[in-house]
Amino acid sequence: MEFANDVPLSPLSFLRRMVDLDGDGIGVVTDTGERVTWARLADRAERLAGRLRELGLGEGDRVAVLAPNGVPLLEAHYGVPGAGCALVALNTRLAPDEYTQLLRLSGAKVLIVDQSLVAQVAEAGSGLCAVVVIGEDYEDWLRTSDPVPLRLPSDERQPLAVNFTSGTTAGPKGVVYTHRGAYLNALGQVVSTGLQASSRYLWTLPMFHCNGWCYTWAVTAAGARHITLRKVDAARAFELIEQEAVTHLSGAPVVLDLLVQASGGARFAQRVQFAVGGAPPSPAAIAAMAGIGIEVTHLYGMTETYGPSLMCVPRPEWPELGPEKRAKLMARQGVRTVNVESARVVTPEFEDVPPDGETLGELVIRSNTVMAGYLDNPAATEAAFAGGWLHTGDVAVRHPDGYVEVRDRLKDVIISGGENIASIEVENALLDHEAVAEAAVVAKADSKWGEVPVAFVRLRAGAEVSDVDLISWLRGRLAHFKVPRDIRFAELPKTSTGKIRKAELRKLAE
Amino acid sequence: MEFANDVPLSPLSFLRRMVDLDGDGIGVVTDTGERVTWARLADRAERLAGRLRELGLGEGDRVAVLAPNGVPLLEAHYGVPGAGCALVALNTRLAPDEYTQLLRLSGAKVLIVDQSLVAQVAEAGSGLCAVVVIGEDYEDWLRTSDPVPLRLPSDERQPLAVNFTSGTTAGPKGVVYTHRGAYLNALGQVVSTGLQASSRYLWTLPMFHCNGWCYTWAVTAAGARHITLRKVDAARAFELIEQEAVTHLSGAPVVLDLLVQASGGARFAQRVQFAVGGAPPSPAAIAAMAGIGIEVTHLYGMTETYGPSLMCVPRPEWPELGPEKRAKLMARQGVRTVNVESARVVTPEFEDVPPDGETLGELVIRSNTVMAGYLDNPAATEAAFAGGWLHTGDVAVRHPDGYVEVRDRLKDVIISGGENIASIEVENALLDHEAVAEAAVVAKADSKWGEVPVAFVRLRAGAEVSDVDLISWLRGRLAHFKVPRDIRFAELPKTSTGKIRKAELRKLAE
Repeated sequence: MEFANDVPLSPLSFLRRMVDLDGDGIGVVTDTGERVTWARLADRAERLAGRLRELGLGEGDRVAVLAPNGVPLLEAHYGVPGAGCALVALNTRLAPDEYTQLLRLSGAKVLIVDQSLVAQVAEAGSGLCAVVVIGEDYEDWLRTSDPVPLRLPSDERQPLAVNFTSGTTAGPKGVVYTHRGAYLNALGQVVSTGLQASSRYLWTLPMFHCNGWCYTWAVTAAGARHITLRKVDAARAFELIEQEAVTHLSGAPVVLDLLVQASGGARFAQRVQFAVGGAPPSPAAIAAMAGIGIEVTHLYGMTETYGPSLMCVPRPEWPELGPEKRAKLMARQGVRTVNVESARVVTPEFEDVPPDGETLGELVIRSNTVMAGYLDNPAATEAAFAGGWLHTGDVAVRHPDGYVEVRDRLKDVIISGGENIASIEVENALLDHEAVAEAAVVAKADSKWGEVPVAFVRLRAGAEVSDVDLISWLRGRLAHFKVPRDIRFAELPKTSTGKIRKAELRKLAE
Repeated sequence: MEFANDVPLSPLSFLRRMVDLDGDGIGVVTDTGERVTWARLADRAERLAGRLRELGLGEGDRVAVLAPNGVPLLEAHYGVPGAGCALVALNTRLAPDEYTQLLRLSGAKVLIVDQSLVAQVAEAGSGLCAVVVIGEDYEDWLRTSDPVPLRLPSDERQPLAVNFTSGTTAGPKGVVYTHRGAYLNALGQVVSTGLQASSRYLWTLPMFHCNGWCYTWAVTAAGARHITLRKVDAARAFELIEQEAVTHLSGAPVVLDLLVQASGGARFAQRVQFAVGGAPPSPAAIAAMAGIGIEVTHLYGMTETYGPSLMCVPRPEWPELGPEKRAKLMARQGVRTVNVESARVVTPEFEDVPPDGETLGELVIRSNTVMAGYLDNPAATEAAFAGGWLHTGDVAVRHPDGYVEVRDRLKDVIISGGENIASIEVENALLDHEAVAEAAVVAKADSKWGEVPVAFVRLRAGAEVSDVDLISWLRGRLAHFKVPRDIRFAELPKTSTGKIRKAELRKLAE
């Protein structure tokens, strides 16, 4: 209920505001040159909401969208919750079986799918009451709809979106976002990344990743401009950065590396900021981007935190440091954003680890921008919230300057003789050896030590090195208890998205 | 109750965060050169909270502070709500009787008063359980206290502060702010005025005005720096802008004019933004400030909206316009800030007036940043919220570009033959005449027209003009029905703060 002094917090308000403030202003520019005003974007969202209401959908219902970045997926971020439903934005790179599973888990009643992806969901549509295809009937469906105003939820804690985790271990889980959480994380993103009305945001990040880290709403909140990009094509991205005076973009390190490879060395007239997340940026990428005038910032988050919740805020003294040292500091996950109440690194008894940059603990978070829970999965929700904190499953240290650095996934930590060994630390030491192309370190049960580390190593083509040589190399770099005595040379098994399957390696190590 | 995904919104979180992020960083610089870290500011606030708890104060209690801008008044914005109490920051320019009245109305149990103002409250302290004097016992009182952590409220809608309106007509009213509202307005201020971690905010605005338009919390939210100024001394302000690399300051037009008079013509190295509120900036002040590199922005708000709720956001095309035209556009109150849900100009039946820049209506607002209500005054609260909107009491037009311009106070509008006459419009036309120093136009009852306008005019020293000449001058500028036929030459009665007493003039006009 809206009243003079009490209005549900919802990112829908941001679009309603831009229609009032600057309805004829351009809110979206597509990579095909289409220019969409805020009023038109809102009208399209209202037509989408109208269609969903007409189909009988409302509070408690879910609508799935499977589409690359573009106006339809963006408008669904307003039209779907504007009809009272929750949006399920699906990853565009999954297999047909996975779509069948996710559509079933989500309970979506309507699927909006891009023409290019229809074949992937050919068998998934059986339980749906409507399937609409972007590039075929979608535009007509919108055009002939009776628009309904985007309605704020009756309760700001009502679901707004469901985003599925990749679920490498226990299968995918649907992470429920609320209007309140998305509103606050969007404002947090505006503050953290300094979005202003003059900003131009290039969509190199998929909108289906945590609703584009809430940029789908944050860019609108700032009254900035969305520049959509259907496919990450580095050459096209550079053209758009120049033509559309882009100031902000973001993505995983792989996107950053793509840009680095394609960069011609030209600097941009405007200040450009690339926010990298998912993994730390490499020193080489930071330096290369700086060379063409793109400033790299590092964000940390996860699906369960609406995307970013920590930021490696640059300190005034860092620019004076050398590029290697600076990159090392920037690779840390950093400090909590303004909307996050608390981010601690704790022992299993919830005691804070000392800020010594060495003692491992689990990163736990408390924030209005932590998910409502996992969809239809109270057991997993309860486990994630044990003790009243979100357990990130990330093992981290806190440095003397207060910055958090993630060292490993909790389940990948090896506990040997009562000491924690971060598998990533050992892997990084192995990767420093010139012969090593890939490395993965996992635990093996041991009667004396509890667990001991086992390393799986793939060598570079033509390179040769013995396990004894590698062990000796590691002993020069790591405490002895961290050094695996068992090193095996092999190809490493991977998921479709390129993650190493450590569960499989653990079985091999037994 | 705090939980993994649900934390009460409170500006106290902003200070807790800065302690974690940058405890050793400088949060406050005083005009005497004292530099206070975030950790020390928080420690002092926690000591203040400890003292209040020790005195038995908590939820539902109020603590008054009467002090100029400085560390004690700033820390009270955290320590008082951190003990569960509401802060009553008193205007430093009132008379002893007024303090007696406000302390009684507020029900404050503790008064913290600056040494320089003790005489003003000598007789007001009878109902208080403690009076502490800054410059005498206050520092000892803090130093020997047991600090308690700043506790978040159990409910984010709990009172955080009470600010008294000047109450020219019906006596002062205590406007109640909540933790939720202050949190959201502070974030809104960060977004609207572009505060960043590198920003430096100079306190030319009194912190007792709507808690410094929520800058007391917004500057901390941004991780920026407070530069406190005990007294608005233009020369000292310019020194501090240069020495402390100030980027943001704000105040009423009178402060802006003070700066204009004292400006030596030197430009600053950094970009400086002056946010003016309370009344529009003059074209001359905008131009003079631009000459020394200070950009003026115009905010609109009132005590009932936690300070700013509209902003005259500059449009891209404005810089190309001439200074007079630009100043005219900038004098408008503008568009709602990101945290405000709706700001409409409506008829008494809540129909929006057409956006024609002419039709008068009342500005009404709906926002989480509208007060909880008037303290112990349900009748006034109900009247202010009639129909579910905050009635600002300001009569405005909406321009074709959507910008709102306030034309008059509702109670000063003259309704003649069914037509609305904004008294300010007629006054401005009179002030355009070179002989006129001051003008006030009020309604007089009329049997034929309902009301007719009567003008009171003070001429410049030595100037001469007849009422017939002024009427003829007005007829060349205004619709005939707006032109007063009754013009009286007189001194204009004023309040202690310089506002013209229109109620008195209405009696004279009868």
